Amino acid sequence: MRKIAFVLIAVAVAAGVFHIATAPGHAAQEAEPVFVDRMIPGYRDWVLISVAREEGELNDIRAVLGNDVAIKAYREGKPFPEGAIIARIAWSYDASEENNKAFGRAQSYVAGAPKNGVQFMVKDSKKYAATGGWGYAHFNDGKSAEVALLKTCFPCHAAIKERDYVFTRYAP
Amino acid sequence: MRKIAFVLIAVAVAAGVFHIATAPGHAAQEAEPVFVDRMIPGYRDWVLISVAREEGELNDIRAVLGNDVAIKAYREGKPFPEGAIIARIAWSYDASEENNKAFGRAQSYVAGAPKNGVQFMVKDSKKYAATGGWGYAHFNDGKSAEVALLKTCFPCHAAIKERDYVFTRYAP
Repeated sequence: MRKIAFVLIAVAVAAGVFHIATAPGHAAQEAEPVFVDRMIPGYRDWVLISVAREEGELNDIRAVLGNDVAIKAYREGKPFPEGAIIARIAWSYDASEENNKAFGRAQSYVAGAPKNGVQFMVKDSKKYAATGGWGYAHFNDGKSAEVALLKTCFPCHAAIKERDYVFTRYAP
Repeated sequence: MRKIAFVLIAVAVAAGVFHIATAPGHAAQEAEPVFVDRMIPGYRDWVLISVAREEGELNDIRAVLGNDVAIKAYREGKPFPEGAIIARIAWSYDASEENNKAFGRAQSYVAGAPKNGVQFMVKDSKKYAATGGWGYAHFNDGKSAEVALLKTCFPCHAAIKERDYVFTRYAP
């Protein structure tokens, strides 16, 4: 009985060692990604990184803001350090009759009601190792989106690995 | 000779008094408007008020930022106090191939190079009384525009007197 137990343990240990030796990082690769599920306060006071317009189903006008850590990295052209956070807010894309009247022609579109939620990328290389070192978040009316939706963030951002998975460039 | 001079002076003085008595405020109305001709530092760090898109000749995407005094007034729905400053920055409206590839369709426009200068409205009811209590500014590469251009600001903003001459609404 003792001998059998010893053999089983020995096999298990050997298997474990073998596993580690041949597939380093395997555990991290298969780890379930972790997401940000608590609203980040104060982001509406952050400095503007840039603005954008999405047509199609999103059909919004949007702004990307950064906390101090993110803005400093952008401005200095340095890698994003731990603690950098990027926020994306968006609004409906509304023609402005008021502005058009002032300009004398139909050319003006402004931000209407908030739309398409608020999104964040939070840099924490260890905590969010499974998604490139960034934790992704999406809130609708302050409520976190389901994990199924959050899982769709990284596969797109993976395309832009050379800029640390961040699409938005700083607009001077 | 002395008598003629006295009469002329008397007529002039009387005319002056008559003028003041019948047209109070006339001097202020006819005062040459004063403009802001020195760049306002630090505005790029201000809080975002809203974003917009102008088609036509301007053809830009833009952001409107406010100093702390302006943002507080916006958020509290109160009149703009003395010292409120609103800044407008703009960039070229560029299709983003990179984003379109990620979205899988052509729908994404981002801020490109700075365009159409930087503009300001500075609240000072006394100094800028001739233009509704706001001083107007426009800078191209940090250099103030000519007075002829600055004179075109207020006639348009006058259309929106009920919101203290400010077009942009706060985007939550």
